[in-house]
Order: sequence, then structure tokens, then C-alpha cells
Amino acid sequence: MTSFIGVSDMVRWITTSDVPRILVGLMERIEQDYRRWNSFDKTPRVASHTPFGVIELMPTSDHEIYAFKYVNGHPSNPARGYQTVTAFGVLADVHNGYPRFLAEMTLLTALRTAATSAMAARLLARPDSTTMAMIGTGSQAEFQALAMRAVLGINTLHVWDTDPDALAKFVRNMRPRGFDITVASNSGETLEAADIITTCTAEKSHISVLPPEALRPGTHINTIGGDCPGKTELDPRVLHLSDIFVEYSPQTRIEGEIQQLDPTHPVTEIASVLAGQEPGRTSPEQITLFDSVGFAIEDFSALCYLRDDVAGTDYEKYIDLVADPEDPKDLFGMLGSLSPVG
Amino acid sequence: MTSFIGVSDMVRWITTSDVPRILVGLMERIEQDYRRWNSFDKTPRVASHTPFGVIELMPTSDHEIYAFKYVNGHPSNPARGYQTVTAFGVLADVHNGYPRFLAEMTLLTALRTAATSAMAARLLARPDSTTMAMIGTGSQAEFQALAMRAVLGINTLHVWDTDPDALAKFVRNMRPRGFDITVASNSGETLEAADIITTCTAEKSHISVLPPEALRPGTHINTIGGDCPGKTELDPRVLHLSDIFVEYSPQTRIEGEIQQLDPTHPVTEIASVLAGQEPGRTSPEQITLFDSVGFAIEDFSALCYLRDDVAGTDYEKYIDLVADPEDPKDLFGMLGSLSPVG
Repeated sequence: MTSFIGVSDMVRWITTSDVPRILVGLMERIEQDYRRWNSFDKTPRVASHTPFGVIELMPTSDHEIYAFKYVNGHPSNPARGYQTVTAFGVLADVHNGYPRFLAEMTLLTALRTAATSAMAARLLARPDSTTMAMIGTGSQAEFQALAMRAVLGINTLHVWDTDPDALAKFVRNMRPRGFDITVASNSGETLEAADIITTCTAEKSHISVLPPEALRPGTHINTIGGDCPGKTELDPRVLHLSDIFVEYSPQTRIEGEIQQLDPTHPVTEIASVLAGQEPGRTSPEQITLFDSVGFAIEDFSALCYLRDDVAGTDYEKYIDLVADPEDPKDLFGMLGSLSPVG
Repeated sequence: MTSFIGVSDMVRWITTSDVPRILVGLMERIEQDYRRWNSFDKTPRVASHTPFGVIELMPTSDHEIYAFKYVNGHPSNPARGYQTVTAFGVLADVHNGYPRFLAEMTLLTALRTAATSAMAARLLARPDSTTMAMIGTGSQAEFQALAMRAVLGINTLHVWDTDPDALAKFVRNMRPRGFDITVASNSGETLEAADIITTCTAEKSHISVLPPEALRPGTHINTIGGDCPGKTELDPRVLHLSDIFVEYSPQTRIEGEIQQLDPTHPVTEIASVLAGQEPGRTSPEQITLFDSVGFAIEDFSALCYLRDDVAGTDYEKYIDLVADPEDPKDLFGMLGSLSPVG
């Protein structure tokens, strides 16, 4: 049988666990896996683009465990009552190829994306950061805020979204959790006191959510919304003011903000910073930018963390996904009750 | 909720349905989809190779429905009590990216592979064919025999396998179903009266299961076992004696028997024969060869056929794979019971 974590069990796991514990645990697991970067097969994800959006498969393997995630991105979904992003993922044993673990990953992706942002911010933001600007308060926003607080202690938020309902929703969800939240009247205003800027918008076009002239020295930018060809959220001038860090450069050059730059523009992979091979932030004045698109290793890590954390609990259900005949060469024998004339 | 067909429901569906009906239905659906070849996104599958075997993702889409299959191939699995091949697959709606249907595909792949072989044999074998040689009587063999009988009326089988247990299993499973079966004492002997030859062996190396000198004019060869780099079952001389037909040439040149040939060696895609753009068999003396590796469209067709056939029956179960918050921008709101200090 294959372990299965459905949506209701995922919700139970998240709500009954300590959320900061999950976010920090996920971040540590992602960091641990990024530190062994060379153990993983890495490939840009396999995307199927249509005018509606994109459906992607994101595989990776460390030669013991194989993981993949199915994920879609449909910017016009919310207007039709659907979510922009849904996802599920699988872990399989490499030695025999059997799928062992299947989990919903819409919620898990939100958690792992936030944990990855926090991991990068811990490496790249100024250690004295206290305030975050958030441009875009859609599905991902609350998770980003919780992760930045769990890892860096950021409690002051200046937020902006073009959708007043999304802003109201964010305030409603986060103010009871003790955040000091200021709603700005435009994106530039959020930047005035920001040590960290998180942009997470869903428009599928080249937009510009940060006025370059409002950027202050020493800021760390965490840009999440630009994650497929034709979908970016930063003015190229913002990129030219910043030192850019990425997950896996062959994928980010296709999907990230840097699709707008020359393919030879220097970027640093976050794994090399974690491994001590490349510097992270080198001065308090530097503007650092994490061009996050989401990489398969993060899903591998998130699925492994979840699997380990739910093992033996009743969050874990079982489904019969793998046919397992008694004699492995007698698959047909499973159809034992087939009529003799069949 | 996402529809789910697990192994036990798949077994029930197959055993309580009429198996020839399923095989013919699958063949017709595959043929219908191959006839609209240009409607599909086609890409060679994404393979993760290790010394143990291979894990593959096979996506395709007709821009209304997106499908992918997860499948492994581990030749040394049976010796350790596991199956060589296991699989599952998913259908999703392209317009919103939501996964709608998840099914076990170990059994379904066996059925669709057999249906595809029968589809090709109907185009390429001599219409007066009555006898099939089968080299390799592992997991796939019974399904091949049933499909060739359902579509072409083949009832006489000459079989050979290096594993006496696999031979005994095949005879035990198929003789009660009315086949006239002769067990040969070597592979060459099976060819003596064969109109159609089906090779389906699992060795992961370059082997030669058909002695070229024993091949008779007019034979149709259906070769299934060679399906990844380094894994072939025919002597290149057999290929040079044959006119070769394939599913999707960019994939077959990597994975099929023709990996042994010059990349410019002429081959014909079966879809062009179905579309009437290329001839199939042109003379009773010609040796035709279908170099089958399995292509994503066949899985798309099989999943759609299954989905339609089980719709509204109790074979279909439901799992909560897709998080579906009431407000699509308020994913965090699903964690409603999260403690206020969380």
C-alpha cells in the first residue's frame, strides 16, 4: 500500500502541529538537502503551456529516493472560483521504483515556498532586519509572513495589493497572530521602512511592482511571482541594482525575473552560498535579490519532512496504488476470478 | 474530490467486464487518438536512470485534457519479489489545471500495451495470420495473447521463455482460455509456423532473442522488450530485414530496437499509416516490425477510456487530493482552527 496524505489530513497536521515548528523544520530539511546539491539529479521542470496556464512535472532524485511534484499555475483561476496553484507529490524508492508516498501539495507547497524564502533571507538579508514590505497578499502571503517571523523574527509588515479583498483577507488572517501590519496605499509606500521586500503577484505578463527609485540600499528582495516564461514582476532596473541569487540557474533563466536579462548576467546559486563556496551578503549597503521560482529539491525535502513527521500517526492513510501480485511475473494471475472463457 | 481507481477496483473492473471488450475498446480509443496525432503535445518521456532501473514520467495533452503516467522499469525486480513494471496515471483539466482522475496503471498499462500491439498488427500483419510465436512469457504475455485473439482471431501460440516457471505460468493461465499452445524448446523453434512474432523480454542489455536465419518472409514482428537505452532484444540483422514502424520516432530512436541503427535509418510512424499518409504492409512477403516502446498518447487514451467506462459506477472512489478553499485567494483560511498565537 502507498501512504496518502489528503487535504483534510494535511490541514489537521498543520493546524495541530506548531506552525513555526513546521516552517523551521522544513527550512532545515531544505537547507540540509541544498547542502548536498551534488547528490541530486537536477533537471528544469517539464512544462505544458496553454493560454490558460501551465501544468508542470518537477522530478528529482538523490539515487535513494525519487520525488516528483505535479503543479499547475493558472493566473485567471481565482476570478473563476478556482485556485491559481494546486499541487500533489510522490516519493518513490529508487531501488525498486515503487511509489511509496502520495501527498496533497497545495498547502505543502505554500509552506515549502515560505520556508525556502526564509532560508534565503537568513543568508542574504541584513541581520538587523525588522520590517518586511509585502507586495501581493494572495494565497502565499500568510505563509511568507509566518516563515519570516519564525526564522528572522520579522514582526512588522507593510502590505499592498491591487485587490482590496486580498488585503482585507491578509489583515484578517494575520493581525490576530500578533503581526504589526500597516496597509499602504501603493506599492512604493510599503518600501519606505522595508528591510526585506517580498513580491508575490500572479499576473501572467511582464509587470513592475517595485518602483526602482524607491529601493533603499541594504534591502533584501524576495521575488516569488515571476515563475514562468512571460511572467515577471520586477522592472529590469531593479535587477541591475541587485546582486541576484537563484535556486537552479538553468531553470531560473527560463522562468525567473532574470529571463529579462542577458543569459550571461552573473547570478549565484543559493546552494553555493550554503556550501560556503560563494559569498552571500558582503556589505550592509548591498541590495540582494532572491529570484525564487521553486525547485524540485524543495519539494523532495518537503515530502521527506512530511513523511517522517506523520509516520505512524493517523494523519497517514493508505491507498492501493501499486499492483502487487504474489508471483511478480504473474500479473495476469491477479485476475484470478476471470471467467475461463474470458 | 479526485476520482480514484485503485488496484482492487481495477481488478474488479477487468474481471467483471468482458476482457476482449476492454481490449477492443482500448484499441479503438488509442486508434482514434492516434488519428488526431497533431492535436497532441508530444515529448519524449522524462527518464531518471540508475543502475537499478528507470523511473519515467510520460506527459501529453490535447489542450483539453492533460495526462501523465508514472512508470518504472526494474529488470532485476522479479528476482527480489517485486514487479518489473508498476505504474499509475493522472488526468487533469487543462482549463484550470486541476487533477481530476487518478488510477493504478500497472494492470492498465499491460492492457494498453497489448491493445497497441493489436492495433499495429491489424495494420501490418498478413490478414491470413493464424499463429503467433511468443518469446518471453512474463507479466505482459497473457495480455498480448488475449488482445491478438480479440482483434485478429489468433488462437495458436508457440511460446518460449528462458524461465521454465514463466512458461508454466503462461500455459496454466492461457490453456483454460481455449488457446492452442505449443511450448518450444528454444526461441528459433517457435518461429517455424509463426505469422506474427511477439518478443517481450526484460533483460537490461543488448540481447538477441530471434535467430535472423529462422525468420520467414511475410512475418510481422511485434517487439516490446527493448524500451530504454542499452536494452534491446533483436539482432540488428533482424532490423535490416524488416520495414520498421514506430510510435514516436524521436522517443523510439533513444529507447527502441532502432537505437542500434544509424539515426537516419528510415522508419514509419504508425500514426501516418492510420492517417493513410504512409503505406503499412505492401506485400505478403514483406517482414514488418513494430518497434514498440510505449508512448504517452496510449496512456492518455487508456485513462480516458477507463474514466468513461467507470463513470458513475462503484469502481470509482474519491480522494481529497486538491485543496479547495472557499475563497480561492484565501488558502490560509483553510487552516481555520489554527491557534491565534500559531
